[in-house]
Amino acid sequence: MTHFSSRYQGVMEGLLTRCRTLSALATRSHHCAPGKRQRLVLSRMFQPQNLREDQVFSLEGKAGDLTCKSQRLMLQVGLILPASPGCYHLMPYTVRAMEKLVRVIDQEMQAIGGQKINMPTLSPAELWRATSRWDLMGRELLRLRDRHGKEYCLAPTHEEAVTALVASQKKLSYKQLPLLLYQVTRKFRDEPRPRFGLLRGREFYMKDMYTFDSSPEAAQETYGLVCDAYSRLFDRLGLPWMKARADVGSIGGTKSHEFQLPVDIGEDRLVVCPSCHFSANTEILDLSQKICPDCQGPLTETKGIEVGHTFYLSTKYSSVFGAHFTNAHGDSSLAEMGCYGLGVTRILAAAIEVLSTEDYIRWPSLLAPYQVCLIPPKKGSKEAAATETVEHLYDDITETVAQLRGEVLLDDRTHLTIGNRLKDADKLGYPFVIIAGKRALEDPAHFEVRCQNTGEVVFLTKEGVLQLLSGVRVV
Amino acid sequence: MTHFSSRYQGVMEGLLTRCRTLSALATRSHHCAPGKRQRLVLSRMFQPQNLREDQVFSLEGKAGDLTCKSQRLMLQVGLILPASPGCYHLMPYTVRAMEKLVRVIDQEMQAIGGQKINMPTLSPAELWRATSRWDLMGRELLRLRDRHGKEYCLAPTHEEAVTALVASQKKLSYKQLPLLLYQVTRKFRDEPRPRFGLLRGREFYMKDMYTFDSSPEAAQETYGLVCDAYSRLFDRLGLPWMKARADVGSIGGTKSHEFQLPVDIGEDRLVVCPSCHFSANTEILDLSQKICPDCQGPLTETKGIEVGHTFYLSTKYSSVFGAHFTNAHGDSSLAEMGCYGLGVTRILAAAIEVLSTEDYIRWPSLLAPYQVCLIPPKKGSKEAAATETVEHLYDDITETVAQLRGEVLLDDRTHLTIGNRLKDADKLGYPFVIIAGKRALEDPAHFEVRCQNTGEVVFLTKEGVLQLLSGVRVV
Repeated sequence: MTHFSSRYQGVMEGLLTRCRTLSALATRSHHCAPGKRQRLVLSRMFQPQNLREDQVFSLEGKAGDLTCKSQRLMLQVGLILPASPGCYHLMPYTVRAMEKLVRVIDQEMQAIGGQKINMPTLSPAELWRATSRWDLMGRELLRLRDRHGKEYCLAPTHEEAVTALVASQKKLSYKQLPLLLYQVTRKFRDEPRPRFGLLRGREFYMKDMYTFDSSPEAAQETYGLVCDAYSRLFDRLGLPWMKARADVGSIGGTKSHEFQLPVDIGEDRLVVCPSCHFSANTEILDLSQKICPDCQGPLTETKGIEVGHTFYLSTKYSSVFGAHFTNAHGDSSLAEMGCYGLGVTRILAAAIEVLSTEDYIRWPSLLAPYQVCLIPPKKGSKEAAATETVEHLYDDITETVAQLRGEVLLDDRTHLTIGNRLKDADKLGYPFVIIAGKRALEDPAHFEVRCQNTGEVVFLTKEGVLQLLSGVRVV
Repeated sequence: MTHFSSRYQGVMEGLLTRCRTLSALATRSHHCAPGKRQRLVLSRMFQPQNLREDQVFSLEGKAGDLTCKSQRLMLQVGLILPASPGCYHLMPYTVRAMEKLVRVIDQEMQAIGGQKINMPTLSPAELWRATSRWDLMGRELLRLRDRHGKEYCLAPTHEEAVTALVASQKKLSYKQLPLLLYQVTRKFRDEPRPRFGLLRGREFYMKDMYTFDSSPEAAQETYGLVCDAYSRLFDRLGLPWMKARADVGSIGGTKSHEFQLPVDIGEDRLVVCPSCHFSANTEILDLSQKICPDCQGPLTETKGIEVGHTFYLSTKYSSVFGAHFTNAHGDSSLAEMGCYGLGVTRILAAAIEVLSTEDYIRWPSLLAPYQVCLIPPKKGSKEAAATETVEHLYDDITETVAQLRGEVLLDDRTHLTIGNRLKDADKLGYPFVIIAGKRALEDPAHFEVRCQNTGEVVFLTKEGVLQLLSGVRVV
């Protein structure tokens, strides 16, 4: 790629070595990606539980609390475990899926100029009193006092905190705007009745972005930019979504949209106009009309899960905390704000709700905790001679398909039949399940490849498997 | 790399396309890594504040609260901003450094078989009452009640939660042991007097690992395994560290070590034996002796910042919650436990404390928020003709040195002199600062390359720069 005079060679090496002096073992190979000697095997995973439905019921206390498909499936295969009402332990597969989702979110937020920050959970009462939300939010706020009697809430959102933060920057110039700050952190809401597993918890991960602009027009442009980034995100996840006009609620502001995944168990009622693509949450409409306000056509109704919410806030918060910037004339001016949320843990559960069957979890391809599961023959079976062939296939995949390192599992529970292990793999929803059955003894060996997201099954040689998998995208 | 029969070609493509149907836009190129058209420019960063010392004092309320170098430096360049006592906003550079640190931690924990989980912050009082720590922890626990009056604390550590979680797994087999579960989450501790910035906060990020073994011997082996992983971690960061015997404190158990960075402002007093490498926290020794218990040689004293802590817990927690496994004879047996903490935000601040000068922040090379800062000539200066040359250099670096995508900043504040911008770059501690001065007008252009971690300065052509940077390791 680059040409360089060889006379530099020695200089370079010495220089780089010295530049590394502070990092003593920088040359030591690190071992994050399991290679030949360290295969990821299913028997060591703290994961698959295959609980019977009655055992899952008992986990949540009583059967009535088990209210939707994603919650039931995620409990059954051990993706989540209840810790207290509305609070869940996220198990290893779920953490992997969530970290992938956060990477996709980071990519989309940073592509539009988002800068990632991290604000505290403990949020001083005085910030919330300044906007009157200390009282307005009522019992949804979890409140506490520290050892000195100072009052805090556990932040469910950060409009107050981020506006105070930006207000403290006395030198903010219009040249730095738009300023897009976001974080991915745990949020808290004392739901009167937490339900639906990760869909409505009391403790959950949220991506919240706050934007600062120099004028209402610029703020509207930024609003559009973030909405487009949200659209791209849901498209990349392969999820069907709708953008509906919505109420501003306790956040406030003058304009708001929700990103909804249409699904029957959704708690939001939406109306849609099939002719002009108008769409809105019914909470903002007079439902006696059932007529589209834009084209006067008839509206149809559907249900959805809210996975994103955008607000144009104008100066509601910046005026309270004095978040100013210096404009082109050298004068001080109030920043125009927007705020934008994505429910991170909620998107995971909603995607499972939308994509899965009653019995089998299906993930957005990009988010699947592991992309490939290899199932070697049962110990003692006729096909057992192919065991080593599968192990070599594992090594070949992880060595030649760079993006799949750490993404391939070997189901080494060979005391179980292939059928039993396939059932587990089907439940957990690996995008690719590769089985060594009878045809693995042929020369060349043929593997049964099941593309779980389409239901297709093909028989491929090792080379075919490698070619197929080399096209898999991961994040 | 792989050979395949061309007859598969068409089949493969069709298959993969269909396997992607659920991910409609999977082929859309995503744009996380800024390329030619999207350069990372300093003027848009919500970061460098260059506050005068008195302004920093006022941030923390009163001058007396500004108690150490890392806190002062991190406030001065805007890496952290106080939100409330002991709680900080982490600004974009800090979030980048922390995410890199978490990646290094993930690599080391997963290399020894660690599985990453995520446990709630809200921790039910009954768990803590079961171990008597609800009372024992006293005012360090932040406590609250939900709307139903149920009591919780904000978890400062998770021995109770993880043991109850493992106890709930009724089918745990000795074949699954050792089980190493860890998480990286925000923890809470109501410090009587938070101080030293991120070194002793009330809200902080911690990596906590909990291990489960089938026998005391196996647990000791796991204990050694985790300690070795910690040693490798600090070695990779290029930090000087000591492993000292320590008190078990409120965690309990029968054996404990601290990983300490030796530094004057450290709050821990340590004794070291120069002859036999014995090292211990003075809290466990009778200091009247000053004699090494292992070799009877004289002990010297030093101070340190505790950045890691390991505990062999035996069955202290597993016996309370009934965390059993089925042993090789089919009998139920109590798991032997260990727990292991790393202060994530504390390691960042401690590394800065140890590596920086009084005026200039220095990072462990792997953790620097950005690896390279390019400084083009001042607008209107004689050298301004070289501006485009630097911009091309930026593009060449990000195009040819794959691992540096997203790691290179262009200091486009060309209304400032090179000297002023160099001073900022020096303060922020980019490992490589590349300046286009007079010699950038030569043919071929020569750039001034400053390796900040060694203080070396060399002049290199574009090819030289690319060769040097291609050897930089990132995580």
